Amino acid sequence: MTEFTGNHILSVNQFDREAIGKIFETANTMQPYAQRKKQTRVLDGAILGNMFFEASTRTRVSFGSAFNLLGGSVRETTGMSSSALAKGESLFDTARVLSSYADVIAMRHPQSGSVAEFSQGSMVPVINGGDGSNEHPTQALLDLYTIEKELSSNLQTIDNMHIAMVGDLKYGRTVHSLSKLLAAYKNITFSLISPKELAMPDEVISIIENAGHKVIISQDLEGNADADILYLTRIQEERFENAQEANKYRGQFRLNQQIYTKHCKSNTVIMHPLPRDSRMEANELDTDLNLNPNLAIFRQVENGVLIRMALFALTLGVEDKVKQHECEVTWFSRK
Amino acid sequence: MTEFTGNHILSVNQFDREAIGKIFETANTMQPYAQRKKQTRVLDGAILGNMFFEASTRTRVSFGSAFNLLGGSVRETTGMSSSALAKGESLFDTARVLSSYADVIAMRHPQSGSVAEFSQGSMVPVINGGDGSNEHPTQALLDLYTIEKELSSNLQTIDNMHIAMVGDLKYGRTVHSLSKLLAAYKNITFSLISPKELAMPDEVISIIENAGHKVIISQDLEGNADADILYLTRIQEERFENAQEANKYRGQFRLNQQIYTKHCKSNTVIMHPLPRDSRMEANELDTDLNLNPNLAIFRQVENGVLIRMALFALTLGVEDKVKQHECEVTWFSRK
Amino acid sequence: MTEFTGNHILSVNQFDREAIGKIFETANTMQPYAQRKKQTRVLDGAILGNMFFEASTRTRVSFGSAFNLLGGSVRETTGMSSSALAKGESLFDTARVLSSYADVIAMRHPQSGSVAEFSQGSMVPVINGGDGSNEHPTQALLDLYTIEKELSSNLQTIDNMHIAMVGDLKYGRTVHSLSKLLAAYKNITFSLISPKELAMPDEVISIIENAGHKVIISQDLEGNADADILYLTRIQEERFENAQEANKYRGQFRLNQQIYTKHCKSNTVIMHPLPRDSRMEANELDTDLNLNPNLAIFRQVENGVLIRMALFALTLGVEDKVKQHECEVTWFSRK
Repeated sequence: MTEFTGNHILSVNQFDREAIGKIFETANTMQPYAQRKKQTRVLDGAILGNMFFEASTRTRVSFGSAFNLLGGSVRETTGMSSSALAKGESLFDTARVLSSYADVIAMRHPQSGSVAEFSQGSMVPVINGGDGSNEHPTQALLDLYTIEKELSSNLQTIDNMHIAMVGDLKYGRTVHSLSKLLAAYKNITFSLISPKELAMPDEVISIIENAGHKVIISQDLEGNADADILYLTRIQEERFENAQEANKYRGQFRLNQQIYTKHCKSNTVIMHPLPRDSRMEANELDTDLNLNPNLAIFRQVENGVLIRMALFALTLGVEDKVKQHECEVTWFSRK
Repeated sequence: MTEFTGNHILSVNQFDREAIGKIFETANTMQPYAQRKKQTRVLDGAILGNMFFEASTRTRVSFGSAFNLLGGSVRETTGMSSSALAKGESLFDTARVLSSYADVIAMRHPQSGSVAEFSQGSMVPVINGGDGSNEHPTQALLDLYTIEKELSSNLQTIDNMHIAMVGDLKYGRTVHSLSKLLAAYKNITFSLISPKELAMPDEVISIIENAGHKVIISQDLEGNADADILYLTRIQEERFENAQEANKYRGQFRLNQQIYTKHCKSNTVIMHPLPRDSRMEANELDTDLNLNPNLAIFRQVENGVLIRMALFALTLGVEDKVKQHECEVTWFSRK
Repeated sequence: MTEFTGNHILSVNQFDREAIGKIFETANTMQPYAQRKKQTRVLDGAILGNMFFEASTRTRVSFGSAFNLLGGSVRETTGMSSSALAKGESLFDTARVLSSYADVIAMRHPQSGSVAEFSQGSMVPVINGGDGSNEHPTQALLDLYTIEKELSSNLQTIDNMHIAMVGDLKYGRTVHSLSKLLAAYKNITFSLISPKELAMPDEVISIIENAGHKVIISQDLEGNADADILYLTRIQEERFENAQEANKYRGQFRLNQQIYTKHCKSNTVIMHPLPRDSRMEANELDTDLNLNPNLAIFRQVENGVLIRMALFALTLGVEDKVKQHECEVTWFSRK
């Protein structure tokens, strides 16, 4: 099993099922603090370096709030222009410098592989907050954690489930990472539903199949009526060669309440990595699903905070001290 | 009376005189903490989401410091480009997501009505930090609070006072909101002094007159010698059709010590929403007034911190616990 | 001796040797907190206004972390566009406003003299974080502090040492400020090694010579074999009139392990203000020196945190209370 304390979180590939179990178990213990039933000051005095060399408001604020919820302080940066990286500084040097200022670093960077390279120079644990098209392990973990919790309330497990992944499976970083994590489980049916141009890469399909799972490839939602999880991703029209090609698929990978009722079980869980495009012409998840209790997209967000709290607690080795530093919440807490 | 705990602060229209009284009474109790005679940790562990989708250094830092002064932590964002809003996300979704990360949100956004729309999706109280030309309720409250305090030290009240509003009364958001708040008081004389092109909108004048106040409209400072409050706003030259038109008014709505001595009582209070343009050619408040004890512009800034502290305490329901979490200030505190 | 409490830190010129001694002595006491052996909450409740009107990730984060390490909170701003300064507000007004929000301000601004001007309007101590080509006193202090510590481990002192300054001595703000600080010591040999076009200004040389130190001017590393400290700065090619001129010096002011072995003593300390350009074509400090124990560049970074902690403690008058607010570090601390 992975030892977390003092180590980096760079890729979903570093987790076996036991490690995943440890993260989820720790995330579960974070719930009362994130929901403001209680607070904990276990990391009072610790500093997070929240280094977002690529802007991403929600991921950045999620990491920062997760650290605040554990009692710690946050120093941060957004964007690259202001950085010494622009003056030819190596990621190694940047990491040596910035890790002098923090106890743990969360880092996002547009360049694939950059976070791993940075971690070589860092004196403190580094958590990958997304490195270009490469990895975004906390998103994959929060997706998997959401699946486990949602299925569990339906008395199901990840083992033996049926998941339909819908939309852009070619460029969607989240579905690749999630698939790799799911490979560690047993007897899953994967329905991969996308336009041919945006099909799941063979490499990912191989990983799934080699792990003994079943793969069904299709181009529409028809015939996936027994999926337990429907994981949608956005199709960006600029992925197609021309507007005509894009138009061919318009509305085909969209989900609204009517389509849901027609093609899904009554308890099929709806997921999406967000943001969803809520403009009229968008090709995505309709807002008429907001009242559907199976819409899990905002629970994914809340689970993201729990997962990030868990990873901070684990990499800093305080997962067993959280409760010991507990105190009351005395202000109005959220609805 | 308005119930504050758990509710949004979106518009000056939501406050009656009792509610205003409650806010000011709470603001008064904040003074020892803001002046660093004492500190309080009443919100230790709470998180402010300081969401400035439009840049505004002073308002953003004022909100953030007010929250720090109550012991809380601040997560923030500045500007819109980095936000998912740019990818077509609805304000409802953005609010659902960001309110998972905070106990209360202060928000500024360039679009009129945006903060109210955002508040629909938020699970935590939202305080409007300015939504375009629409509302900026904390500025109006700090202005009114300043007027009350300044008059009080002259043994006067808001009831029965004479206020002269000077400058751009057409586009000046602050004078509109302040006028609406003042309508709740009794027997005020409003001198509205502006170029004809930048006159106070009829809608605002109606509100004032319907509440039984007296309105005097003029185009210069002459004949306003008994005003208790002089509230100046900047005239932006680009508001006029041409430079010639703008030149006609040059210097006419400017205030310096000489003009003050000629046209004002010895204790007329000078206010301005800041920033003031201190460049030589500027058409505004001269720096030779800096030594005038009636220049209240920097006291407005300090009162802004008190008002924001009060609103955080009230919306989070801790206004009666502030003193209980008091402790000593052990470092050098400001002059 | 300088009284620190409540005063600004604007220029290296304000420190005599006794004041420098007090800063270094205070910095020494900060080591256990910066290295996470212990933590201190001496400034719990205090607010730093980290006002970077010019972007500088590392300096900004270094100031912010130093304040967090003392237990305080940080409010900050980056860049100028969003600021009222752009609307013609004077630095005096900006300072009056921003100092209402903080207990101490660290400020960087592109304009020479701006921080001193700002400090006139501030009600709280202001620490200069760099004002254009003028001053960057915390960099000079951390460099001097590094020299003292590095020499001390070689059983040497700043008095009687030999320092070689190499590279762009004309525009390099750090070497000017460091030279002024060194003038307060005794019997130093300065080797000033640069292209003629980038020679140390006469004004700085006069200060050194008038203080009784020895100056050797040269254009290459040859003949400086007994330097105790080698302080390199980057030569920016755009400083030369044309590429041909720049090429003449290519590689001449570069340092790598081979050149070090040839021209330096076995314990010559290598310093650089960072960032160093690690690109192949760069004209600087090679990464093959990373394994050289005398490479002090990352220790300079760590010393920067200690110096900034010391200056916050001194200006806020808590330097004797730090230990009293000490508590344990319970999380994994850096390697």
